[in-house]
Amino acid sequence: MTGTLASLGEVQIIRIMERAFGESGKTVVGFGDDVSAVKLSSGKVAILKTDMFVGSTDLPPGMTLREAAWKAVVANVSDLAAKGVRPMAGLVALGLPRSLNKQDVEEIARGLSLAAKNYGFPLVGGDTNESEDLTISIALFAVAARRQLILRRGAKNHDLVAVTGEFGSTSAGLQSVLRFRIPKRKLARSLYESVYHPKARLDLGLRLAASRAITSSIDSSDGLAWSLHELSSLSRVGIIIDHIPVSKAAGEFAVEHGQRANDLALYGGEEYELVVTVSPRNYSKACRVAKGNLKKIGYVTDEFRGVRMKLDGRVADVKKKGWEHFRS
Amino acid sequence: MTGTLASLGEVQIIRIMERAFGESGKTVVGFGDDVSAVKLSSGKVAILKTDMFVGSTDLPPGMTLREAAWKAVVANVSDLAAKGVRPMAGLVALGLPRSLNKQDVEEIARGLSLAAKNYGFPLVGGDTNESEDLTISIALFAVAARRQLILRRGAKNHDLVAVTGEFGSTSAGLQSVLRFRIPKRKLARSLYESVYHPKARLDLGLRLAASRAITSSIDSSDGLAWSLHELSSLSRVGIIIDHIPVSKAAGEFAVEHGQRANDLALYGGEEYELVVTVSPRNYSKACRVAKGNLKKIGYVTDEFRGVRMKLDGRVADVKKKGWEHFRS
Repeated sequence: MTGTLASLGEVQIIRIMERAFGESGKTVVGFGDDVSAVKLSSGKVAILKTDMFVGSTDLPPGMTLREAAWKAVVANVSDLAAKGVRPMAGLVALGLPRSLNKQDVEEIARGLSLAAKNYGFPLVGGDTNESEDLTISIALFAVAARRQLILRRGAKNHDLVAVTGEFGSTSAGLQSVLRFRIPKRKLARSLYESVYHPKARLDLGLRLAASRAITSSIDSSDGLAWSLHELSSLSRVGIIIDHIPVSKAAGEFAVEHGQRANDLALYGGEEYELVVTVSPRNYSKACRVAKGNLKKIGYVTDEFRGVRMKLDGRVADVKKKGWEHFRS
Repeated sequence: MTGTLASLGEVQIIRIMERAFGESGKTVVGFGDDVSAVKLSSGKVAILKTDMFVGSTDLPPGMTLREAAWKAVVANVSDLAAKGVRPMAGLVALGLPRSLNKQDVEEIARGLSLAAKNYGFPLVGGDTNESEDLTISIALFAVAARRQLILRRGAKNHDLVAVTGEFGSTSAGLQSVLRFRIPKRKLARSLYESVYHPKARLDLGLRLAASRAITSSIDSSDGLAWSLHELSSLSRVGIIIDHIPVSKAAGEFAVEHGQRANDLALYGGEEYELVVTVSPRNYSKACRVAKGNLKKIGYVTDEFRGVRMKLDGRVADVKKKGWEHFRS
């Protein structure tokens, strides 16, 4: 399939865009981080983010339109959470199939509205279109002090690597409904929540950033392994993972279906936790502001580049693999 | 088709969203104008705009992906032009069908890049997805002084109504390729440009707004009649049109196909001119800054609400009709 989107993959497509668009003196953060940022006056930056939800690829069986709209907002908020920035306002561009009815539109509006209220910002405008594929494109705007932003680059030798939650539930939940055809209502509660009602770690992200304890940060929506590789690559360091934070439900699912729990946690995606690095002297401070929601999973080293895991005394590479559009 | 999107129409859908989202103290301009605006500090506002291009409804026969991408940007810039605001940065969320190849993606990137450079702002981030329907969702950001913004409301009794160009070419061009199956390359130049390479009136919009001569403004992308009705409704005034600015090519098309040229100009759409009101004492100033690109087409009255035309001594209603998604 040379030359098709499947062979290109999302990363290549973004590179083509980046190359065509070029550089700008106004840009503080461009492509390649969770959000973009452009210079305003007096040390402030405008934070800009867009993420699109597409029905044909992002809508698991049984997901209501309200849930889809909620999730579309969460995916955007999560990226701001990772940078420690509170959303100020949002826009919604919709592509709606003709088969939808008034109630469907109201469900979408409700999901968008609930999510925006939950994360404390207004939806101030938008655009509505007919489309063959349900499309919910959100754009978020915020203002931040330049030095307040926590980027993907910034991790230093000896920093600790920590996460805000456990992983694997979304993978296990998606496999349950997609592969094993388990109805939504029969899913264990945590799998259900992970797939159909995910949450962004906004408060936690704001507290961690405000504490100045963390040196780099990313959200885990493309998978834990992918996120670790991004931190490693942009911070130009190596990462060694000595603990893989598998959720209880993912562990049970792995046993039941003869799968590797670690793989579910590492190579999943659509999980909206934060992956951060913390200098050792600030770790207790970070844990304090996180109120028990921070777990150490490894450390940063300058002895190599990339991501490895060291479990039971054995070292292995963590693959740079996650959920990428056009490759699945 | 009760209850379906076709019976609802775009305006109803936007109303459902608006109602669900509610009001916010931070919002200076919400739904219902060309752009949204939220309060920043010291009299400044952040300008936010999103407009989505969808292949199945917005891509005429023969339009290249580069042209589609260009047009997606133009549609957004035009709305900022109408408010007198220069774009500061843009985001792009893409939904790409699997059938596209690398060259297609490069063409989209080139169209986006050319348009952004032409209107003087950087594209600083985005999102790429797989979709069954080609989707190019643009979001623009700008900063403006609150009092610099020219809104749809603001037209006053006795103001003059003026436009920045002629109308009907896009309608004539679209009919030529869609209905009469005329190949793109055989279109008259002005029809070709209107359909495949439209331009936003950014410089003109900036100059008009800076002159403080105009009292209200809207872009004409939903059609001249629709735009006039919006100005009338939001300014709570009546508008009388005594001249309909039909383009030469639209006039010729009308004669050739036995159509009414005035209808082509009034009830078309996808034309990116500006429709403004000007107080009579500032009209010569407005013409001066517009350098010949402003044409008076009527005046504002408080004697009724709505839009009427007075041609050859006869008065008739201008229908509130334009190009609306889900209704075509």
